[in-house]
Amino acid sequence: MSTPSEPIHPGSQPAEPILVVGSVALDDIETPVGSHHDVVGGSANYFGAAASLFAPVQLVAVVGEDFPEGHLNVLASRGVDLAGLERVPGRTFRWRGRYGADFGDAETLETQLNVFEHFEPKIPAAFRAAPWVFLGNIHPDLQRGVLEQIERPRLVAADTMNFWINQERRALRRVLSHIDLLVINSTEARLLSEEESLYDAVDAIRAMGPEMVIIKKGAHGAMLFHPEGTFCAPAVPLRRVVDPTGAGDTFAAGFMGYVARAGNRDFATLKHAMLHGIVMASFAVEGFGQDQVLGLHRRQIDARVAHLTQMISLG
Amino acid sequence: MSTPSEPIHPGSQPAEPILVVGSVALDDIETPVGSHHDVVGGSANYFGAAASLFAPVQLVAVVGEDFPEGHLNVLASRGVDLAGLERVPGRTFRWRGRYGADFGDAETLETQLNVFEHFEPKIPAAFRAAPWVFLGNIHPDLQRGVLEQIERPRLVAADTMNFWINQERRALRRVLSHIDLLVINSTEARLLSEEESLYDAVDAIRAMGPEMVIIKKGAHGAMLFHPEGTFCAPAVPLRRVVDPTGAGDTFAAGFMGYVARAGNRDFATLKHAMLHGIVMASFAVEGFGQDQVLGLHRRQIDARVAHLTQMISLG
Repeated sequence: MSTPSEPIHPGSQPAEPILVVGSVALDDIETPVGSHHDVVGGSANYFGAAASLFAPVQLVAVVGEDFPEGHLNVLASRGVDLAGLERVPGRTFRWRGRYGADFGDAETLETQLNVFEHFEPKIPAAFRAAPWVFLGNIHPDLQRGVLEQIERPRLVAADTMNFWINQERRALRRVLSHIDLLVINSTEARLLSEEESLYDAVDAIRAMGPEMVIIKKGAHGAMLFHPEGTFCAPAVPLRRVVDPTGAGDTFAAGFMGYVARAGNRDFATLKHAMLHGIVMASFAVEGFGQDQVLGLHRRQIDARVAHLTQMISLG
Repeated sequence: MSTPSEPIHPGSQPAEPILVVGSVALDDIETPVGSHHDVVGGSANYFGAAASLFAPVQLVAVVGEDFPEGHLNVLASRGVDLAGLERVPGRTFRWRGRYGADFGDAETLETQLNVFEHFEPKIPAAFRAAPWVFLGNIHPDLQRGVLEQIERPRLVAADTMNFWINQERRALRRVLSHIDLLVINSTEARLLSEEESLYDAVDAIRAMGPEMVIIKKGAHGAMLFHPEGTFCAPAVPLRRVVDPTGAGDTFAAGFMGYVARAGNRDFATLKHAMLHGIVMASFAVEGFGQDQVLGLHRRQIDARVAHLTQMISLG
C-alpha cells in the first residue's frame, strides 16, 4: 500500500503546493443504479482528496456545524492543509441532483447555499505564494476575490458551470481575463461562447482571456487547446458508471496534481497531465462520492495511464 | 497536381486491388445548409471513388438506365474497374434522407430499390482473387453471396445499418461469422449487441465472428478493437459540416485503401489506416456528395494525417 507522500513520478524535488478554492458540500445523489444521502462532496473537497495523491494541497472553503469532523481528518491525513477551511455556525452547503440513464449532465433538484451564502474566501498568508491554483466551481466574484489575494502563480486554472454562465456572465468574463486555463465541458463551452462549432467556441473563449482551454467530453475523453497545438485523449474504457458527481473536479485534480509534481507547465507536461486527469476521473465515476479515489493506490493510477497511452500509440 | 496512381505511402510494390460490393445510387439530400437532388451516391460508389486514391478498385454493383454515364467515366479514369458494374433496364436505386441540426444519423424519408430489387452480385472471374474485400451496406444475404464467390482474401471488412440489424438479424449474423472486421457506428453496435455499454457491445459483436470491430463516433473520432489492443483516434477538427452522406463508406475506403497500399494487416498498419479513414471521411463531410473527395490532392490527405497524428502525440 502506498502513501500520499510517495511520488507518482519521482522528480528531483518535492512537489510544489496547489491552492484550491471551492465548495465543500453534503450531497444527495440519485442515479439509475442507486441513491445516496449526505454524501461528502463539493468541488474543493473532490479536488483536494484527489490532488493530494500528487502534491501538497492548500484548501480554502467553508463548512457548517453539521459537517463530519472525521472527513476533515481524512483530508488532513492525506496532506491537505485545512488552514483555510472555515467552520461557521449553520448548515453546510447542500446539493441534490439526479442523473439520467446515460449518466450525462446532472439535473439539479435543489441547492441550499446555507453557510456558503455569506462565504468570502480568505486566503491564509501561508497560501498566498502557491504556484499552482485551481478555482473550483463557485460564484465568479469569489473566484476573482481569490486572485486579488494571491501572489503571482505559475498557472491558474478555473472551472465554472451553466448556472454562472447564464446568471453571472459579466462577473465570469472578468475572471476569465485573469486565468490561464479554463476547464469546462462541451455544452458549457457552447453556452459561454454562443458558438455551435466546438472549435469556434474554443477560439471565442480564448479571446476572452485564458490562453488554454480544456474541453471535457465525458465518455469521449478530453481535449487540450494550447497555443502550441491541440491534444486529444480518449476516456478510460469503462463498462459501468456508478456516479459522475465530482468527476470534473477529480479530472482537474489529476491534471493540476501532475503539473505540480512535474514542476513545469510546458505543452508536453500538460499532455501527460491530461492523461492523469482522465484516469483520476475514471476512478471517480466508478464509485459513489469519493469511495474509489480515497482507496486508490499509485499502481492503479499508473496502470490506467499506461493503458490510455497505449490506446493512442501508433507503435 | 497529383494523379490517382501516385502512391500515398510509397511501398516496395504496387498496391493490391480492393474488391467492393455495394450500392450505386442517386440521392436526394436535405441538410440544414441546403438540399440537393440526384446526387450520385451509394456505398460502392463512395468507397470506390475514395479508395482509388490508394489502390486499384474492383467494383461490383448495379445501375439503371438513368444513371449518368459521365460519372462512370470519372470512376474508370481513377482506376476503378467497372467490369462488375451491371447496367440493367429500369431506374437506379434512390435514397432520400434528411439531416438535423446536429448532422447526426440521417432520417430516411424514402428508399426506392428499383434495379436493386432483383440484384444479385456476380463477381467477375478477374475479381475473385482480390486480397482486400469491402462489403458495403446492402442486404446481408447479398454480402454472403459475395463471400461464396471469392477466393481466400487477406481481409474482409463489412458495413451494415440499423435497417438490416432490425429486419434481417439472422441473415446478418450468418455474414458476421465469415468476416474479419465490422465497421459500424456506436448506435448500431448497441442495437446489434443489445448491450448498453460500448465495450460490452464490442465484446458481444466479436463473439458473433469478426475478430476486429471499428466503432465510428462521428465528431468524436473512431475506435479500433483488435485482438492486440484498442486504438482510439480523434476526428479531424472541422468547423463546418456540409453533408455527412457517404462519410462511413469514405472512412472505410481510406482505411482499406491504406491497408491495400501497405500490403499487410498488422495492428500498427491498421492504426495508420484508421487515421487515413478518418481523414478521408473529414473531406467527405465538407462537401455535398463526392465534391471534395473527387478533387482531392495527396498532399491534402497527408497534411491532415500529420495533423491528426500530432493531436495524439505525447511528444
